[in-house]
Amino acid sequence: MVRNLKIGVIGAGRIGKVHARTFSTLVSGASVGAIADTNGKAAHELASLYDVPKTYTDHKDLLADPEIGAIAICTPTEFHAPMIVDAANAGKHIFCEKPLAFDLADIDQALEAVRKSGVTFLMGFNRRHDVGHTRIRRDVMAGRIGSPELCHIISRDPAPPTAEYIRTSGGIYVDMMIHDFDLSRYLLNDDPEEIFATGSCLVEPEFAKYDDVDTAMVIIRFKSGAICNIDNSRRAIYGYDQRVEVMGSKGRLSTYNMLEDNTQFAGPDGFQEPRALNFFMERYIPAFQAEGIHFVDCVLNGTTPSCTGMDGRAAVVMAKAAALSAKTGRFVNVNEIG
Amino acid sequence: MVRNLKIGVIGAGRIGKVHARTFSTLVSGASVGAIADTNGKAAHELASLYDVPKTYTDHKDLLADPEIGAIAICTPTEFHAPMIVDAANAGKHIFCEKPLAFDLADIDQALEAVRKSGVTFLMGFNRRHDVGHTRIRRDVMAGRIGSPELCHIISRDPAPPTAEYIRTSGGIYVDMMIHDFDLSRYLLNDDPEEIFATGSCLVEPEFAKYDDVDTAMVIIRFKSGAICNIDNSRRAIYGYDQRVEVMGSKGRLSTYNMLEDNTQFAGPDGFQEPRALNFFMERYIPAFQAEGIHFVDCVLNGTTPSCTGMDGRAAVVMAKAAALSAKTGRFVNVNEIG
Amino acid sequence: MVRNLKIGVIGAGRIGKVHARTFSTLVSGASVGAIADTNGKAAHELASLYDVPKTYTDHKDLLADPEIGAIAICTPTEFHAPMIVDAANAGKHIFCEKPLAFDLADIDQALEAVRKSGVTFLMGFNRRHDVGHTRIRRDVMAGRIGSPELCHIISRDPAPPTAEYIRTSGGIYVDMMIHDFDLSRYLLNDDPEEIFATGSCLVEPEFAKYDDVDTAMVIIRFKSGAICNIDNSRRAIYGYDQRVEVMGSKGRLSTYNMLEDNTQFAGPDGFQEPRALNFFMERYIPAFQAEGIHFVDCVLNGTTPSCTGMDGRAAVVMAKAAALSAKTGRFVNVNEIG
Amino acid sequence: MVRNLKIGVIGAGRIGKVHARTFSTLVSGASVGAIADTNGKAAHELASLYDVPKTYTDHKDLLADPEIGAIAICTPTEFHAPMIVDAANAGKHIFCEKPLAFDLADIDQALEAVRKSGVTFLMGFNRRHDVGHTRIRRDVMAGRIGSPELCHIISRDPAPPTAEYIRTSGGIYVDMMIHDFDLSRYLLNDDPEEIFATGSCLVEPEFAKYDDVDTAMVIIRFKSGAICNIDNSRRAIYGYDQRVEVMGSKGRLSTYNMLEDNTQFAGPDGFQEPRALNFFMERYIPAFQAEGIHFVDCVLNGTTPSCTGMDGRAAVVMAKAAALSAKTGRFVNVNEIG
Repeated sequence: MVRNLKIGVIGAGRIGKVHARTFSTLVSGASVGAIADTNGKAAHELASLYDVPKTYTDHKDLLADPEIGAIAICTPTEFHAPMIVDAANAGKHIFCEKPLAFDLADIDQALEAVRKSGVTFLMGFNRRHDVGHTRIRRDVMAGRIGSPELCHIISRDPAPPTAEYIRTSGGIYVDMMIHDFDLSRYLLNDDPEEIFATGSCLVEPEFAKYDDVDTAMVIIRFKSGAICNIDNSRRAIYGYDQRVEVMGSKGRLSTYNMLEDNTQFAGPDGFQEPRALNFFMERYIPAFQAEGIHFVDCVLNGTTPSCTGMDGRAAVVMAKAAALSAKTGRFVNVNEIG
Repeated sequence: MVRNLKIGVIGAGRIGKVHARTFSTLVSGASVGAIADTNGKAAHELASLYDVPKTYTDHKDLLADPEIGAIAICTPTEFHAPMIVDAANAGKHIFCEKPLAFDLADIDQALEAVRKSGVTFLMGFNRRHDVGHTRIRRDVMAGRIGSPELCHIISRDPAPPTAEYIRTSGGIYVDMMIHDFDLSRYLLNDDPEEIFATGSCLVEPEFAKYDDVDTAMVIIRFKSGAICNIDNSRRAIYGYDQRVEVMGSKGRLSTYNMLEDNTQFAGPDGFQEPRALNFFMERYIPAFQAEGIHFVDCVLNGTTPSCTGMDGRAAVVMAKAAALSAKTGRFVNVNEIG
Repeated sequence: MVRNLKIGVIGAGRIGKVHARTFSTLVSGASVGAIADTNGKAAHELASLYDVPKTYTDHKDLLADPEIGAIAICTPTEFHAPMIVDAANAGKHIFCEKPLAFDLADIDQALEAVRKSGVTFLMGFNRRHDVGHTRIRRDVMAGRIGSPELCHIISRDPAPPTAEYIRTSGGIYVDMMIHDFDLSRYLLNDDPEEIFATGSCLVEPEFAKYDDVDTAMVIIRFKSGAICNIDNSRRAIYGYDQRVEVMGSKGRLSTYNMLEDNTQFAGPDGFQEPRALNFFMERYIPAFQAEGIHFVDCVLNGTTPSCTGMDGRAAVVMAKAAALSAKTGRFVNVNEIG
Repeated sequence: MVRNLKIGVIGAGRIGKVHARTFSTLVSGASVGAIADTNGKAAHELASLYDVPKTYTDHKDLLADPEIGAIAICTPTEFHAPMIVDAANAGKHIFCEKPLAFDLADIDQALEAVRKSGVTFLMGFNRRHDVGHTRIRRDVMAGRIGSPELCHIISRDPAPPTAEYIRTSGGIYVDMMIHDFDLSRYLLNDDPEEIFATGSCLVEPEFAKYDDVDTAMVIIRFKSGAICNIDNSRRAIYGYDQRVEVMGSKGRLSTYNMLEDNTQFAGPDGFQEPRALNFFMERYIPAFQAEGIHFVDCVLNGTTPSCTGMDGRAAVVMAKAAALSAKTGRFVNVNEIG
């Protein structure tokens, strides 16, 4: 187990912690070489947790560090595109968290910088690396269910974020449902044509102040005629609800939730099983690990990234189409967005 | 077990057979007194199967039979409304299969005849009488899941009907999804506001000739802000797929499919369970029985029917709104329909 | 549906009620023609429930009734053997509840009377007619799991009977586990060689007064070398627990419990499903129906009974071997019993 | 994450590989400091896999290494007891794989050496650290199911070992069922009184040459009167079958198998889920990790080991009682063994 790729993690918040842990303890051939955060204390605390030798408060200093071979962008969305440009110019390989950016022009500029520099770029949609989703995609592509006809993706967080988080999140479609938009393309191996969306503010009335909803449903018509439904909620009292289902002419593939443990209690009121794994930090540990291993494999061995910048862009286009549909109450063609 | 309500079954086709069996063998206090069908041979065959003493080729003759206390209308949809009027005028209690009628004016006229005559009227939405649906409705009304927020209703037939059936069916929304429209109101105890629908012809291209689809998805926004998704397909290779789910602020209630038996096989390829019960004739036997018992109870004991003519009308309105939405690609307010 | 076999039910207790309902409402081609019980009031009450035209207080009067073609023996065990003899001598076809009798000599005498008379005899082990058990037996015989190696049969009643019932029951092995002994032969299609049993009095200490236990486990070695475990308890707080499993060289077949309905609730404490169907009167309704249909088919059409007197005898032998093992603490060969 | 306990792994075979991986990659605060195996090549290969700096061919040289703070004994059983003595004398903390030894005198001598030296000793029963088993034990001790009455432990390997392995294994009871004997004491928090065992050679007839069986069932009566069944097979074609169930006066706790992934396929033949995780190396990764973390915690922080030498001894006593029972065909009291 030769650890030779030093990764710089930019952003020491919730998702930065996930990737620092992953690259430090779960990925052979890599380690975290430095952590950058404008909040130096947060960077230090995270670094000390995983024996990371260096911290920076300016991501440009991290990018100038010759020991760092690749970076993981874990900052708020507004910084993704400029940091991609900076990293590409610095010749660092790039892993970037979702969503790619809010603005398509920014995205196109960032992806052009990546293209010119020739660095490896992996878009961070962790659910593509889940063993269940991977199995379904593989089976769909192998024809096990014939041609896909109907699809359901359910994703409900255990509890809503703060109103402050919502304020700058970009709204439920680009902040949360972006995962499901990407997953729909991944599972169906198809591209969307038209999107309809509607949402309600039922969990946290305060979110309405920021013109956001916490409960949303979407219908997507794909080029093949397959129809996909996405269901999102910011609150599921029984834990993180993550289910997908694809029905085709020859069968149906689906996943069920992963629970805290494999016990069952039978008592006077019936049969009881424990809560679903609480949130993505618990539910998707193996997916984050597989994603990290894949990224290191792409950088070290030239393997083709399984999730590209264009995939990241496609999900943002879908999110924008959904937001427009929710506003106008009509089916929106993705070509209207770009 | 005193059998004293003689029921006349009008229509000896697929659903007529179901109700003839139900009232003959599964409902105490009732029996089938006569069967009417313009196809006399069909009436005879069904009558001999369940020892029914009389048959008619004209439903008016059946309505004139003084021994008959109530009727079950199991004919094609176009005949429902006029037969309701005839039966009401003849003072017979009425059980009527879905959908009530294609036309709202016909519906209103039929319901007015019922109102004037004072006969008992039960709208035939068998799924309301399923033990799982009944349990969910009861739990929702008791507040077990708090306020409903998201709902899914999946209904997929095992195999498509003939193109000939489709030709006069009225289209997937009024012929098939009508059950799910009613069920959404029943499970959520709420009324719809806006409906969006889209469909594809993926199973039987020939259905497109009749301007119909075989795969459809709908989103309904209810008055409370709750959002409901309905998924219909004319073909599910693994058997009749019947699942519902209601998520609320305090929990989630759902049903799973009922299978052919309760066995599991574990072999070299994993774990296997048998197909879902094949179709409504197998899956909903207990629901048809409960419906029949309820109808007899309404007639004999004056119990209030759990599914009224107005419920039947509401489902037709939703179906029409869905059809309009599928044509126009926009959210349709049910008030636009009537 | 020509009802032409009039069945006399002897015994109007718990199991008599089950069979009176079954033959009255669930079996085509048969009806209950008379009910006999030494308690005339009990006979009358049951008769009025299902429109049975006649009652008797002496079973011999019932046997003398020329309208009665067959009988169902539902009395306490001590009366089974003499009633079989009486019925055989009267030329009535016989359905007899488990256990056949307490004493092997009585059994042999009764079966000899049946043989001489030539009447149809069906031993009443209802579980053989359960759709899951039937499927497993069929699959085992078709070689789906190769040669059987290990077997589990779990049968736990929801709540213990009265101490009074226990007093004359014959003990847990012959009263309760008799079902499982028969089921083991049925599922494995094999005959037992040696039996080990042990039990505890953990539910109702009072049962110890009658030298009985309420919690018991048995190991049976079959001729093929397959090993079977039976687990019995007189109390399962979550409902009637009925599970079987057969493991062989090529796979495993098992059943799971049937619950009150197919709903699931997900709440803050996890996922909840309702209780198991409470007891045999609910759980095995379809099995009793299939058994009744089979009996009528044997009588009317000469079909070979699926469960013979020798099957009934074999189960009693196993029960006696188990009781002897529990007393001596050693493996008991069934040949020691007879 | 300060790694400061250097562990010497003795034995580079199948289970040595598991612990080398565990302590190298899954346990904070520890690393593998050396590997010893009489087969130097095997030691080298395993060392290179996890960057272990040293290897030895004589375990005494490893024990003389002052950098090594603790050892993990992963050799064949016959070497366990002498190595424990050697390690205790060398002042090294000890983790020892199951079974403790074949001979009770050897066990007592080894445990006495541990006692005198004062080193930490953890008995290696990995299943005690499984999240499901831990949850059940905790719930049982908290009274969630009242007093335990019936218990089932099923453990079936996916495929039999070689006949050569069987030759020196000590037989199924001490080699394989030893896990289940320990688990029965752990889950029930009780001690055994009497044991009955029987086995068959159904999987590999060759095992009979070594007086062993490949299919076995055991009944254990505990001091409380609770009765436990253990079911072992050397082959389960659907994967490693690991299930437990404890039934008590107030409820039942059980586990189900963990499968390769959380997908389900619905096709023309019904519903299919993937195989069970193939064997202990896959199924119990988290349990081995928890065990390793616990061992390091015991050594570094003085935490009381959750599985002691006396626990290891008790399991061997049970295995010997089972073997004696299988030979004599009678209930064997554990006091007969020692």
